[in-house]
Amino acid sequence: MACRLTAVEFISSGLTVEQYAISLLDRIKARDDAVQAWAYLDPEYILAQARELDKVPSDKWGPLHGVPIGVKDIMYTKGMPTQHNSLIYENDAPVVDAGPVAILRNAGALIFGKTTTSEFASVFTGPKTRNPHDPNRTPGGSSSGSGAAVGDFQVPIALGTQTIGSIIRPGSYNGVFAFKPTWASISREGSKIFSLIFDTVGFFTRSIADLQLLADVFKLSDDEEPGAFELKGAKFAVCKTHVWPQAGQGTVDALELAVKLLREHGAEIEELELPEEFSRITQWQRNVLDGDGSVSFLPEYNLAKDKLDPLLLGFVENTMKLSRRDYLASFDAIASLRPRIDAIARRYAAILTPSVHDEAPEGISTTGSAAFCGMWTALHVPVVNIPGFTGSHGMPIGVSLVASRHRDRHLLNISQVVGEAFAAGGWNPVL
Amino acid sequence: MACRLTAVEFISSGLTVEQYAISLLDRIKARDDAVQAWAYLDPEYILAQARELDKVPSDKWGPLHGVPIGVKDIMYTKGMPTQHNSLIYENDAPVVDAGPVAILRNAGALIFGKTTTSEFASVFTGPKTRNPHDPNRTPGGSSSGSGAAVGDFQVPIALGTQTIGSIIRPGSYNGVFAFKPTWASISREGSKIFSLIFDTVGFFTRSIADLQLLADVFKLSDDEEPGAFELKGAKFAVCKTHVWPQAGQGTVDALELAVKLLREHGAEIEELELPEEFSRITQWQRNVLDGDGSVSFLPEYNLAKDKLDPLLLGFVENTMKLSRRDYLASFDAIASLRPRIDAIARRYAAILTPSVHDEAPEGISTTGSAAFCGMWTALHVPVVNIPGFTGSHGMPIGVSLVASRHRDRHLLNISQVVGEAFAAGGWNPVL
Repeated sequence: MACRLTAVEFISSGLTVEQYAISLLDRIKARDDAVQAWAYLDPEYILAQARELDKVPSDKWGPLHGVPIGVKDIMYTKGMPTQHNSLIYENDAPVVDAGPVAILRNAGALIFGKTTTSEFASVFTGPKTRNPHDPNRTPGGSSSGSGAAVGDFQVPIALGTQTIGSIIRPGSYNGVFAFKPTWASISREGSKIFSLIFDTVGFFTRSIADLQLLADVFKLSDDEEPGAFELKGAKFAVCKTHVWPQAGQGTVDALELAVKLLREHGAEIEELELPEEFSRITQWQRNVLDGDGSVSFLPEYNLAKDKLDPLLLGFVENTMKLSRRDYLASFDAIASLRPRIDAIARRYAAILTPSVHDEAPEGISTTGSAAFCGMWTALHVPVVNIPGFTGSHGMPIGVSLVASRHRDRHLLNISQVVGEAFAAGGWNPVL
Repeated sequence: MACRLTAVEFISSGLTVEQYAISLLDRIKARDDAVQAWAYLDPEYILAQARELDKVPSDKWGPLHGVPIGVKDIMYTKGMPTQHNSLIYENDAPVVDAGPVAILRNAGALIFGKTTTSEFASVFTGPKTRNPHDPNRTPGGSSSGSGAAVGDFQVPIALGTQTIGSIIRPGSYNGVFAFKPTWASISREGSKIFSLIFDTVGFFTRSIADLQLLADVFKLSDDEEPGAFELKGAKFAVCKTHVWPQAGQGTVDALELAVKLLREHGAEIEELELPEEFSRITQWQRNVLDGDGSVSFLPEYNLAKDKLDPLLLGFVENTMKLSRRDYLASFDAIASLRPRIDAIARRYAAILTPSVHDEAPEGISTTGSAAFCGMWTALHVPVVNIPGFTGSHGMPIGVSLVASRHRDRHLLNISQVVGEAFAAGGWNPVL
């Protein structure tokens, strides 16, 4: 079925944009009641765009010609409303493309629709969306719709954002590749701000090849162009982090199997215990978010505080009684650890670390724990969720690969090979 | 004349919003040919808004009821286009308010028009705007129109942004108060991004009382509420910085006179020489801007690179051949100096430092040097330009006061008293 193609597969498939779009719309028609990944989707608009793209002569095709892309609904899109899952922005439609949307559209992408999000991508309460692999479970958040839509073959690529764990967590829960690039390496123009120093734009796909294509389009480049990579003889760290006591059996087993698979391919794995200060990032990050949230949500607080989630109200009202001094100490302490993690990460091909505590929990009221993700976001390092494993209920579990800042291409190269090795991990979507 | 009122004076004047707006429009009518501060101004729209505001019963007035505010044209405004001084965005009008605009509008402000800017607030080529005190001179940039409009009594308050010196420099050149708050203490939602880690939203006014009012509206607060401040016995640092050899006679004289006036009021002044590393911030900041610019302007580069300033083209094409390693080293080195400047600044009531190299230079093709401003922007500390002095051509020169991060209210309190002392400095607009 055409809807199962990745972006790269579609590009070489010979299908028209319209044919591919129709197959996705059919898939959505069949599955939307169960998954509800979309905050806005207009089939007429999609098909009109698809037909326009089909008229473009092939010598004018962009690198993403006709590739349908879902956009998280905190990112501005021309021609579609942006509502942030907030009543305050109901039917508010800025006529402007967010930076990444402009880049994708210019590269020939078909901007497909807006995917659901937690309110302002900032709270732990989920939107209506359900996990495609089990409708009784959360798809994670805050990029809920992006993770679910890609996991359910409704679209090959979707945009997400991560402030704590909002890309990697839904990546793991939905069994897809998810990439949080180095902080600020992708324009965040036109994406709702929660925290300037943490918010990061990234991607969901079903293959590393698609992530490589996106990395080309967004001009991600390392100092050294990465060469061919093979697992044999490569040295990895496995870093359980200070959050390890929170890991459930699914994650414990997944990480063990991941290490086993890499070793079977000839990789060396050594356990990495980070210096004690790294364990304090969780609290420091919370402090910074508390301070940043008080600035970011003041406009909405003033406009309609009765329509804001209590968590966001609390930021503005400083219910945590956070002092400026503690805010700054936290901000600076995290900053001082960034060059240190870079130096550590450079000793390895990559750091292997849990993506999440376990498979997606039951219910959709909360989007699950982001405890394993937050530290890496704060440190600005690139992270890729590699699917491959399953929990005790047969739900997907991914494992993360981490590299030092601005080695995104290196990380994607390794992720390709590691992803192939993890294909033996047992995850096989039955959708 | 009503147009000469500050915001606080207008609020207690008994004038209607319409009366005040008319006096400003009359002023603009008389002066616009000479100054050209506006990228967009619609008198009908202004008067319609003013009449609506006059209908609001006084018990529903916000703290800025009817206060006209100019908005730099890189910040989104409902009902007015946002064009960034870029051909790419001609007639592009997102129907959304930037965060600060939403806060001001909600507080009752009259969003008056869009003030001119250098292209994307990111280049050293000026817009059409001229210095109100001498049309043959630049008003500075990139917040050119905001500085000129406030200096010329066309509006009491204007919004600006600063990435290197785009608030403080036009503040000094136009003879007005200009306030760059602590980084990220004011929402930057809906303002074009150049560099996430440096861009800062701030204000132009003709009194510190107006800045205090804005600080209330934006909920700026220090850990310790600042008490009454008097100059007698207060300890200031005077910091000439590593850029001092670039100071012209106007700045040399202004700083000397500033010190003299403070001493006459009983303040202690000691010379502060910063550790050598601080002198390297200029280059580090350039490196970070180069890297950040390559991300920020990629959307526009892809859309229409022939319409981009060569400086911005150079960022995207990395003509400086900046490595990721140098980018990160620069980014981290600046971060490591932030807690150090805080500790130094806390030893003083405030640090006195030049705002600019001299009075506004002749011509409008470049917006002047920001060499004295950049370091403080990179360090995230709050800065206030205090007008009071003049150069050899009778043009205004200001001096900056700097405090440690998130002591914005403390800094404004001191600025009030220092501003009164500097009133004897010789600056007296003859407009």
